[in-house]
Amino acid sequence: MERISRHKVCGGWLERYRHAASTCQCDMCFSIYLPPQAEKQKLPVLYWLSGLTCTDENFFQKAGAERYAAEAGIILVACDTSPRKVHLPGDETDWDLGTGAGFYLNATKAPWSRHYRLYDYVLDELPRLVASHFPVDAQRKSIFGHSMGGHGALVLALRNSGVYRSISAFAPIVAPMQCAWGNKAFSNYLGEDKSLWQDYDASCLVQKAQHKLPILIDQGEADEFLVEQLKPEILQLACTQADHPLTLRMQAGYDHSYFFIRSFVGEHIAYHAEALAR
Amino acid sequence: MERISRHKVCGGWLERYRHAASTCQCDMCFSIYLPPQAEKQKLPVLYWLSGLTCTDENFFQKAGAERYAAEAGIILVACDTSPRKVHLPGDETDWDLGTGAGFYLNATKAPWSRHYRLYDYVLDELPRLVASHFPVDAQRKSIFGHSMGGHGALVLALRNSGVYRSISAFAPIVAPMQCAWGNKAFSNYLGEDKSLWQDYDASCLVQKAQHKLPILIDQGEADEFLVEQLKPEILQLACTQADHPLTLRMQAGYDHSYFFIRSFVGEHIAYHAEALAR
Repeated sequence: MERISRHKVCGGWLERYRHAASTCQCDMCFSIYLPPQAEKQKLPVLYWLSGLTCTDENFFQKAGAERYAAEAGIILVACDTSPRKVHLPGDETDWDLGTGAGFYLNATKAPWSRHYRLYDYVLDELPRLVASHFPVDAQRKSIFGHSMGGHGALVLALRNSGVYRSISAFAPIVAPMQCAWGNKAFSNYLGEDKSLWQDYDASCLVQKAQHKLPILIDQGEADEFLVEQLKPEILQLACTQADHPLTLRMQAGYDHSYFFIRSFVGEHIAYHAEALAR
Repeated sequence: MERISRHKVCGGWLERYRHAASTCQCDMCFSIYLPPQAEKQKLPVLYWLSGLTCTDENFFQKAGAERYAAEAGIILVACDTSPRKVHLPGDETDWDLGTGAGFYLNATKAPWSRHYRLYDYVLDELPRLVASHFPVDAQRKSIFGHSMGGHGALVLALRNSGVYRSISAFAPIVAPMQCAWGNKAFSNYLGEDKSLWQDYDASCLVQKAQHKLPILIDQGEADEFLVEQLKPEILQLACTQADHPLTLRMQAGYDHSYFFIRSFVGEHIAYHAEALAR
């Protein structure tokens, strides 16, 4: 594992690493914020999953989350949104497929199936790597994300009872089987058998989730992707039917940008901090 | 004046505008953050000046200042660092001269003298424009900036007694006559007569400032430009000799990036809020 950069922020350290990922069969980068408390004790970890076109860097450049993590004594980790430079046909042509668009799943269809295994990477490999190199209380972890990353966070938490203490999302893709982004990704990465798609659709998963981990979602009402791609009402209906606890906060005036995330990231970190303190 | 973009942030609105600037004889852009209080009352304004290579956008994308401005009820304005697309010989070849490097002065030497008039733009034109379009208490304004923008803020405040209520800077160029960045800019924009340079050198100006407005500076000790370009000890000595109040805080571990700015921007805004409330 190679450290690429290091910046002091809000009394702690933001560090970026590159490592050879065995799940994705390529080099992957991640960024980690270690608050000041990390110098003296093991801390819980909150994983961030970014949206389409992002890398592991956007969240730390724009969200302004460090001061809240420093206040709460939580380590933040952001991973990349796809393998990079694996040179698959078509991986660089579309912004919503291939590079920058891994959708946090394990692809089953060629040519994607060899490298596009972000689900295993985020669930297993990255936490093991983080726990082996940083002062982490590995039993205390939570997850949140934005848009495609909100989808990833919901899917990972709903499919893995007890792994995450808490889950939240900003403007997540909650029903990928019912929007163009999800259909394009799933048909390419998973093929046309839609029974396989359900394992990566939060609105399907919530109907069979054994452990009813509460879900917190903030969604901007002025989000340019709200009606066509995000469709929070589908998850809301599924949660009602499954009696799954969901707090869906529609936020007037907010769009899909990091300005929206920045406005509420402090509340999300406080939400996770409470769960991680238990 | 044309609005280019608008985002809701921390309960207020971040807006970006383009307008025909009479001082600079070209179109200029600026960004303004209007906290929620601006819907009901006139508010003081805090001007931000960015460093080399920045536009009016970097500060709002990276500093995370909006929540502090919303808490304090202060309007934030960030302007560009130079004219754009005026097509002067050499304006695009160097990152520390021409485009992105206006140094907040009025150039006197061709070809720069026609457009490079950021000093008058920031001091007069922009505040008049802001006051005529937004709910501003025009008598209450302060200024701060980073690196080249810290230089600009210091020069504007030291040369214009009573115009700004308070002044602060992150890692400013405090003695441009004694560093390569300043020498390159001043010899190109002002010519070789160094007596003219003194009007844009904070460490010279502090020696003849009539109104001893206190100066707050944060400077990272791990700043990669500290020794060669920033040289805070020169301003410190000048302030001691002139009995000018200076609070210079050397911050261990911090570099020259926006991660440094983000770490202390809340304290700077609180500092200005106190002065602006008087």
